[in-house]
Amino acid sequence: MMEKGISSVEVLPSKSSQVTAVKVVVKEPETKQTQRGKRVGFVLVHAGAGYHSESKAKEYKHVCKRACQKAIEKLQAGALATDAVTAALIELEDSPFTNAGMGSNLNLLGEIECDASIMDGKSLNFGAVGALSGFSLAAFKRNKRKLELAEKVETDLIQLKKRRQSNEKGSRVMCRMCGRRSKASGGNTGGGQIKLYSLENDSGTLDTVGAVVVDQEGNVAAAVSSGGLALKHPGRVGQAALYGCGCWAENTGAHTPYSTAVSTSGCGEHLVRTILARECSCALQTEDAHQALLETMQNKFIGSPFLANEDGVLGGVIVLRSCRCSAEPELSQEKPTLLVEFLWSHTTESMCVGYMSAQDGKAKTHISRLPPGAVAGQSVAIEGGVCRLESPES
Amino acid sequence: MMEKGISSVEVLPSKSSQVTAVKVVVKEPETKQTQRGKRVGFVLVHAGAGYHSESKAKEYKHVCKRACQKAIEKLQAGALATDAVTAALIELEDSPFTNAGMGSNLNLLGEIECDASIMDGKSLNFGAVGALSGFSLAAFKRNKRKLELAEKVETDLIQLKKRRQSNEKGSRVMCRMCGRRSKASGGNTGGGQIKLYSLENDSGTLDTVGAVVVDQEGNVAAAVSSGGLALKHPGRVGQAALYGCGCWAENTGAHTPYSTAVSTSGCGEHLVRTILARECSCALQTEDAHQALLETMQNKFIGSPFLANEDGVLGGVIVLRSCRCSAEPELSQEKPTLLVEFLWSHTTESMCVGYMSAQDGKAKTHISRLPPGAVAGQSVAIEGGVCRLESPES
Repeated sequence: MMEKGISSVEVLPSKSSQVTAVKVVVKEPETKQTQRGKRVGFVLVHAGAGYHSESKAKEYKHVCKRACQKAIEKLQAGALATDAVTAALIELEDSPFTNAGMGSNLNLLGEIECDASIMDGKSLNFGAVGALSGFSLAAFKRNKRKLELAEKVETDLIQLKKRRQSNEKGSRVMCRMCGRRSKASGGNTGGGQIKLYSLENDSGTLDTVGAVVVDQEGNVAAAVSSGGLALKHPGRVGQAALYGCGCWAENTGAHTPYSTAVSTSGCGEHLVRTILARECSCALQTEDAHQALLETMQNKFIGSPFLANEDGVLGGVIVLRSCRCSAEPELSQEKPTLLVEFLWSHTTESMCVGYMSAQDGKAKTHISRLPPGAVAGQSVAIEGGVCRLESPES
Repeated sequence: MMEKGISSVEVLPSKSSQVTAVKVVVKEPETKQTQRGKRVGFVLVHAGAGYHSESKAKEYKHVCKRACQKAIEKLQAGALATDAVTAALIELEDSPFTNAGMGSNLNLLGEIECDASIMDGKSLNFGAVGALSGFSLAAFKRNKRKLELAEKVETDLIQLKKRRQSNEKGSRVMCRMCGRRSKASGGNTGGGQIKLYSLENDSGTLDTVGAVVVDQEGNVAAAVSSGGLALKHPGRVGQAALYGCGCWAENTGAHTPYSTAVSTSGCGEHLVRTILARECSCALQTEDAHQALLETMQNKFIGSPFLANEDGVLGGVIVLRSCRCSAEPELSQEKPTLLVEFLWSHTTESMCVGYMSAQDGKAKTHISRLPPGAVAGQSVAIEGGVCRLESPES
């Protein structure tokens, strides 16, 4: 069992000079450590890459904090990564402030249809549901929520109609993913469909949720859950249900020196076409995690030939990678540690994240934002840290 | 416009000595050419990787031939690759001998649910449907077919029940994918689910269909359509609906010297976990197409760490890649040609394919089989050829 923990968070500096906008938050090394549990592990969650208003910042952070705590409670009780990541997801889904589970956006028929998936890095098993309209256990809560939102949808549709009429006069709308105001794109099927640009409001139900976890044994797991686009066509399935696109987890193996876990958020079409979760996982096998993620977001996401016709490429990822190594050279004879590098990166206006290790007293939460002047869909924000966790003594 | 066509088919020899079983059919160079059209283009179709009985060989080949002809008619009329690939798919789906469209397997409720997708190599656009139960135009034909099959399903369920009872006594069943007899795997949800090993019969409705096309302009397109596993759970979605798994098409670009198109068939779970269509497309950017495909099937499919726990890995692919080049060194000053390399490879007992160029009088069809003694799920068969098509004179 672990006797004491050493935890630190440090900046992973960018080596690139080609970054349109990179915002790196320098985190002070953690010196206060609370020995709450005797097991190690780490969780990183997100409440979406999109646009998070300042007025709702407290709520977004609060749900991320609770989700981290749920996952850590599981890890402290000896659960594996998949159980911990599930506990975090349930907490995130049950919030009315997130676009997942009970807070999901409604489709054109005023119904909730959810996408979600989970991947276990140990077995490499993957499970997903798409356009799911019948969570048996959550049905009551969801239906209650639907009743509350029914009136709102009707109002939205009226606003949408007005918006589309005014678009024809050249007016501008706000993108729900990035907060950017620009000319509205027309529906691409002619039947009232809106693809990316949506209603000019701030309903608070914008964002996909997800989590990545590493447990005491070094296993990783990832999960993602989404209510999809507001007023989407019934049956539309987004990245959260699709293999390689919404989440990815892969334990270290013969050809993979690091265990990696990834969860994505943003415009489903962009995340699917770039198979972004798996792409990030592959990139994270190179030495410099920060640089690898940055280059992936720039070259494989914003610069992807599969998105060449898009005005902006909107998404975000949380990633972690871990490996067993000695904590410090001078301590290498003492205890092996689990080195956890964690990062988040987004091209959207903002992304809300939370993270916590089993040795922390409470979760840290943060709303990452593009720097002033940076253009959402064309710029990359990237931040992260390192957490060293002592493995249990053998 | 093209004045005359030069077409040849030749063997691409294997360089690997690690192949468990490679069967290469030496194709004689085509010398008889029929000038049916003034446009160039090529189509390769499949009626599934699985087990094709000798007794139904004629029907399988016939539907492949008709599908090729439909695609070539489109190309000769000046259609782009996406239109031609669609025409081939419609023909394949409309056959009662294929497991797609009207011939689809039925799920546990006795209903048809189809997966299908198409990708355009020029725009890189991708469209898919999963577990679709309501093709509006095909509804009549499908419902008629359902009525005919309703009695069969009831019989199947009775046989399944008997089979599961006898499995408990250690009996062996035949795998529908490969024809192999082995101990039956138990259902993994306890509710009557069968995953891979199914009924010991030969219903003739085993196989996914697909097609790949290159048109006169060098654009590629790929498509796939499937009725899924027999007696699958309602709502189950397989590779044919999933990005990167069922089909892939990508025109030549800055980082891709070749245009590539891929369509897959086989065990959906195996094809999804390996994202096989995209994996093949990436591999085909290296010089030796035959070797690249063989190594992909061996290392990224049979040898995939994502399928490490599987007894056998069952699937097949058809691929083509094309590039513009001079036909022969001594003719290089005359006309550029479209070099089309086409291959099929499978780990299943058999795979039915057909192919045709716009200059051919009729399609060639073939049921490729593993050599005697080769073990389905563990061995790779690979065959292919080269077709040189003169581009229209400038």
